[in-house]
Amino acid sequence: MLLTKQKVFKDPLYGFIHVDHVAVKKLIDSSVFQRLRRIRQLSGVQMVFHGAEHSRFSHSLGVYEVAYRFLEIPDLKKSLNKREQLLFLIAALLHDIGHGAYSHTFEAVFGVDHEKIGAGIIVTNQEIRQILDEIDSDFAEDVASIILKNSRYPLIEQLISSQLDADRLDYLERDAYFTGAAYGRVDLDRIIRVLKVKDGRVVFKVSGIHAIESYLISRYHMYWQVYYHPVARAYEVNLEKIFLRLKHLIEKKYSFAFNLAPIKKIIENPNDLRSYLMLDDFYVNGLIGSLIYESDEVLSELSKDFINRKIWKYLNDDQANEEEINRIVKQYNPALRPYYLAKRTVENSTYKDFGESFGEKIYILLENGEVSSLKEQSRIIDSLLQSGTKKDPKFFYRP
Amino acid sequence: MLLTKQKVFKDPLYGFIHVDHVAVKKLIDSSVFQRLRRIRQLSGVQMVFHGAEHSRFSHSLGVYEVAYRFLEIPDLKKSLNKREQLLFLIAALLHDIGHGAYSHTFEAVFGVDHEKIGAGIIVTNQEIRQILDEIDSDFAEDVASIILKNSRYPLIEQLISSQLDADRLDYLERDAYFTGAAYGRVDLDRIIRVLKVKDGRVVFKVSGIHAIESYLISRYHMYWQVYYHPVARAYEVNLEKIFLRLKHLIEKKYSFAFNLAPIKKIIENPNDLRSYLMLDDFYVNGLIGSLIYESDEVLSELSKDFINRKIWKYLNDDQANEEEINRIVKQYNPALRPYYLAKRTVENSTYKDFGESFGEKIYILLENGEVSSLKEQSRIIDSLLQSGTKKDPKFFYRP
Amino acid sequence: MLLTKQKVFKDPLYGFIHVDHVAVKKLIDSSVFQRLRRIRQLSGVQMVFHGAEHSRFSHSLGVYEVAYRFLEIPDLKKSLNKREQLLFLIAALLHDIGHGAYSHTFEAVFGVDHEKIGAGIIVTNQEIRQILDEIDSDFAEDVASIILKNSRYPLIEQLISSQLDADRLDYLERDAYFTGAAYGRVDLDRIIRVLKVKDGRVVFKVSGIHAIESYLISRYHMYWQVYYHPVARAYEVNLEKIFLRLKHLIEKKYSFAFNLAPIKKIIENPNDLRSYLMLDDFYVNGLIGSLIYESDEVLSELSKDFINRKIWKYLNDDQANEEEINRIVKQYNPALRPYYLAKRTVENSTYKDFGESFGEKIYILLENGEVSSLKEQSRIIDSLLQSGTKKDPKFFYRP
Amino acid sequence: MLLTKQKVFKDPLYGFIHVDHVAVKKLIDSSVFQRLRRIRQLSGVQMVFHGAEHSRFSHSLGVYEVAYRFLEIPDLKKSLNKREQLLFLIAALLHDIGHGAYSHTFEAVFGVDHEKIGAGIIVTNQEIRQILDEIDSDFAEDVASIILKNSRYPLIEQLISSQLDADRLDYLERDAYFTGAAYGRVDLDRIIRVLKVKDGRVVFKVSGIHAIESYLISRYHMYWQVYYHPVARAYEVNLEKIFLRLKHLIEKKYSFAFNLAPIKKIIENPNDLRSYLMLDDFYVNGLIGSLIYESDEVLSELSKDFINRKIWKYLNDDQANEEEINRIVKQYNPALRPYYLAKRTVENSTYKDFGESFGEKIYILLENGEVSSLKEQSRIIDSLLQSGTKKDPKFFYRP
Repeated sequence: MLLTKQKVFKDPLYGFIHVDHVAVKKLIDSSVFQRLRRIRQLSGVQMVFHGAEHSRFSHSLGVYEVAYRFLEIPDLKKSLNKREQLLFLIAALLHDIGHGAYSHTFEAVFGVDHEKIGAGIIVTNQEIRQILDEIDSDFAEDVASIILKNSRYPLIEQLISSQLDADRLDYLERDAYFTGAAYGRVDLDRIIRVLKVKDGRVVFKVSGIHAIESYLISRYHMYWQVYYHPVARAYEVNLEKIFLRLKHLIEKKYSFAFNLAPIKKIIENPNDLRSYLMLDDFYVNGLIGSLIYESDEVLSELSKDFINRKIWKYLNDDQANEEEINRIVKQYNPALRPYYLAKRTVENSTYKDFGESFGEKIYILLENGEVSSLKEQSRIIDSLLQSGTKKDPKFFYRP
Repeated sequence: MLLTKQKVFKDPLYGFIHVDHVAVKKLIDSSVFQRLRRIRQLSGVQMVFHGAEHSRFSHSLGVYEVAYRFLEIPDLKKSLNKREQLLFLIAALLHDIGHGAYSHTFEAVFGVDHEKIGAGIIVTNQEIRQILDEIDSDFAEDVASIILKNSRYPLIEQLISSQLDADRLDYLERDAYFTGAAYGRVDLDRIIRVLKVKDGRVVFKVSGIHAIESYLISRYHMYWQVYYHPVARAYEVNLEKIFLRLKHLIEKKYSFAFNLAPIKKIIENPNDLRSYLMLDDFYVNGLIGSLIYESDEVLSELSKDFINRKIWKYLNDDQANEEEINRIVKQYNPALRPYYLAKRTVENSTYKDFGESFGEKIYILLENGEVSSLKEQSRIIDSLLQSGTKKDPKFFYRP
Repeated sequence: MLLTKQKVFKDPLYGFIHVDHVAVKKLIDSSVFQRLRRIRQLSGVQMVFHGAEHSRFSHSLGVYEVAYRFLEIPDLKKSLNKREQLLFLIAALLHDIGHGAYSHTFEAVFGVDHEKIGAGIIVTNQEIRQILDEIDSDFAEDVASIILKNSRYPLIEQLISSQLDADRLDYLERDAYFTGAAYGRVDLDRIIRVLKVKDGRVVFKVSGIHAIESYLISRYHMYWQVYYHPVARAYEVNLEKIFLRLKHLIEKKYSFAFNLAPIKKIIENPNDLRSYLMLDDFYVNGLIGSLIYESDEVLSELSKDFINRKIWKYLNDDQANEEEINRIVKQYNPALRPYYLAKRTVENSTYKDFGESFGEKIYILLENGEVSSLKEQSRIIDSLLQSGTKKDPKFFYRP
Repeated sequence: MLLTKQKVFKDPLYGFIHVDHVAVKKLIDSSVFQRLRRIRQLSGVQMVFHGAEHSRFSHSLGVYEVAYRFLEIPDLKKSLNKREQLLFLIAALLHDIGHGAYSHTFEAVFGVDHEKIGAGIIVTNQEIRQILDEIDSDFAEDVASIILKNSRYPLIEQLISSQLDADRLDYLERDAYFTGAAYGRVDLDRIIRVLKVKDGRVVFKVSGIHAIESYLISRYHMYWQVYYHPVARAYEVNLEKIFLRLKHLIEKKYSFAFNLAPIKKIIENPNDLRSYLMLDDFYVNGLIGSLIYESDEVLSELSKDFINRKIWKYLNDDQANEEEINRIVKQYNPALRPYYLAKRTVENSTYKDFGESFGEKIYILLENGEVSSLKEQSRIIDSLLQSGTKKDPKFFYRP
């Protein structure tokens, strides 16, 4: 059902976010979606790039708007019927609904999966479910299937999550805008002009190959300059260690002064969505702020570091530093090492071209109508693929 | 004392924030200053302009950087000795250190004053004090005097807080950048080029008059399009009513489930800085999130509105709506009216030219060396001054 | 007739210029329109703002694109039938087709009118006429009538030329972009969202009033900071004097070494369009470059000043300078004064509200459906209107 | 000698161009430098990207400003004495002074070299020479030696012309700004922060490697998307053929109606600088406009194509098109083929790393103080170097 009057939100990237459907407006107004305002998009990164204080709410609206603009592409208009178009818009809007505060770190320690949680919320949360049921009774399940990549709607899945999709197009541009990074600019207009559908698959006209190369290189630089900045990583290691100590203490039935109910419940049942929805930045930061006053010294110290931004130190974890690292490790009581020391490696290839599965390869539509792959058509990308994956192993320690 | 190597922070507006002094670096790293990361710059406004999620931390660094650039103006270099230059930089950095979460609303209800609190923190907080004492033993008092506008350093006071100052230059540009508003762009380079000092007073060369006019008109539009957006105001009324109910319940010795210690202490003693420093966005939003579960229904309902962003309704409070407003008022139980209804007026003149006191008038340096006022030199500003103050009285009610 | 595939041109302001119609593409490719590449948009201004080297070609494409975007406004789609929509696009594209090099100065001296010439070209130039005749046999006359404001299509006339139109929206933004001026930014998206049609008249919703105020103030600042920059005016006075001397010499049957045929023909017959079309920047600058070598000393000296950018001097033409100006005037041989001295006044009101004729007033659509005027609805504009017209009289002289 | 007051020019890229020295101001005001206003930076490219109408004048001021900012780099301040700093600024300003209209094409046909001509102008042009002699009597020769890369001042040569220099930094950013290309953005602030001098050689700190990679990839994309756009190349082929026919006709003593004196003189003596300085866009375009009326049909037809922008057709010159190309060639009279057909190949490697000569390699300063090369430190650049040179051979023909 369409709104009687289009609703817009002012956005610093796109000028306006355009909303035409009643359901989309209701979803944005739902408390589950509003909760994304309280979860920042970039965890540790904002400790280095102070401008990057934007939330998953802004990003989710952005992905929705990219999807909205995609729907002006003639091939997509033809390939998707009206219901599928709405499915695409709503899946774009809700693709990150399963995120909690610092969720990548949280997931690693507590073993939850934000995509499964997201699908769970879409299907079972009363507020969301009711809005989607008003469209039709299969809608919620269909949106969830797209988030889970069940291949029920492969074309929409590719548009939302692949090597070149609405999600990435928004976050690269948005994160670049808010950090102030010189990289990350994406020629969205151009990419939209060359996006076609061939045999149910997203392909890009060969004339757009430079825009795609540029996008992949920008992504590469955003990873190495912004997302993988060592100070951001050090901050995330600090956080991970807090979660780890917390987990261990809960397992040991340590008695907490602060109300840990939601976290305890999630440990017992990782599918307790009601508890999960409480885990926004306010809760987690409030929690850590309180943990400073716990009697467990390890937890208290770790929490103080986090709140007062005492950034841990780090060294490249390579042969040149082997001796130095060993020397440092020995200075720590073995019982403390799991909490105060960490070896972590990040790695990133500009682009992966593996497999035939939809959504992983970037396909290029040649002038003669044949479909090729980016790897075959781009000398620059081919050589980068051959150069393999760049890794950065680091040793972090609490000084 | 200078750093052995200049330190920079990436900023989306200025490219870099430049730090040369050891003391400035230490102040930025202090937990009191880091706390500003947890206090958003624009309270209700972010409910309308979702991009505006930036904090007082970003803004404070920005004001510092504007001050840093001011110090390249030949007249300022000459007028301020080395110590005064550092005083200017640090006062710029710390000018908002007394802000808490939603502080304008908080102040209105609980009767505190963020400038006095800021001065108090600078003089008495151990961490800050120690850093400033390392410069010299009068430094903290001097910084505080600038925040309080005691006229000890009138030139620096004008540069930080007047009609055209480092504070406003940063926030207009920054708020425009993050909201995406088309207004708010300031020609900082030009303003810096025309800023002179004459008889200890900031003056602007007549050739820069268009840049100043443009700045004032931008400010006017930012106020009416962004800061005074009715939805933002409705949200702030909601918050104010929560604080009000809270205050009344505390006065009535209501027994709260949530830990209200810091707020209670501030009510007892508005100068309890330690408690005040706990009042960041995490605390206040966490508090309001918990208040939903209090048994007091008014408090609980108000808190639900706030957390779930149920925006209150509003009408222009003018004669045309008088009857309608009276009709609405009558629908509410008189005991609830102080919490569910509000008449609030915002007003704004583009520019005020009153008085002779430093910092209120914008002075113009004519080509013949005489000093005049903006009002006399700008036809456009003169006519705006004569048009008086624009007001927008509104009636807000919980639907 | 539509193109089989949309054609786009990359534009630094709008991303792309979109062309859907065969006729529009043919017009752009015509030699008469391509000739606009050889005529710079801003005559003397580029002597002060070196970035402003853009041509009337860029600007004409820009006005066309603004018109193209206007056609997505629901009210305009409804108010204009398909033929009128194309009429609007083509009139926007061709609105400046009658411009020659430095045409404002040229017109002043030689008594031609670029709008009449433009209409003449549209109706009589074979290349243009044939393209328009392919649409229908009245099309050329209809486009010409819009350029001449004959009120045959009053709505289209307002959209192309009024106080707030496609022409001005493009040139303010474009000139700001290329000069680098901080002013001149226009919130085009917003203006498009509030533009409505009521009783065949362009009106703007009251919610867009800030965007309109901001546009008018920007325009005011662009005039005074950019278009009326005294150095630019001095340069144009120099040019005017060259034309004047040229005219006098032709009248005196002076024998020129350089081929002056086109100019002589235009003097004989101001409607000689074929000759007029030769007057691009290349011809006129080439001409002036050659005039340096003419034996007439006045013409030669004036031309040298122009080519080598020897900017004339100037004083405010006010009482304070009266004596000084008289002193200067006396230093010149009376016979030379008409060529070496000039008093010129520029004036500009932010906005004119006079009259009821379409296109002169900006109409505001109130929430209750009534139509008011900008003057009545905007305190800021009303006060500016009362402040009257700003004038800047200057005395220029060849040093 | 310093100006009593710094002079600035508004620039859309840098805000302001700053001039401190009397000599720099005089050089900018000289007629030889002002002539660069009449020579567009991008020849055929503006036929595709209509925004790219900027001149070598803007670009030359831009390179000067980049140099001006380089001089705030501590290492450069130390490595260059006051005289060398001025030498650097002036060489940056004048580095393109030897360019004429369409000079790359002109050079190819007529066998001149714009760097030699530039050096010649600097040393022998009276106006320029006098300004430089006022600094000291060796200054002109020293500036010329830098343009000619005689290794007299190897550090300055590297800063002006190498793989990463003031010239390229300006033109990539400037051409991107005016074309509207999404590529070409350079992180100038970052590059300035990591530029160091080691053993008289420009090196970049390893922490800046991502900014350099990004710059090289941007350059690569600007070449293939903008500079090597086939339509731009087709336009330049057209021009080349005009020059070629002209040359042949002059050799055959053909009698021209138009004044060809300057070109004839240059053919006789490629060092006739006075004639060369007349060859601006106005002259050459005026010439071609006149050549339309010459009786030589080939010259006339080629000139018509150029003036009316009749773009030639083109095919990839590869095996797939061999037959088609042969078929086309046969359609042309053999006597016309040299004028109406052309095979042209452009090629570009992202970066060349050959040789040890200063200015060709990009050197990287490691954290341990050792100097390495970009190739060794950047996986991405190494793999691109191995991928070799990208070529695009095309067959152009007059349809």
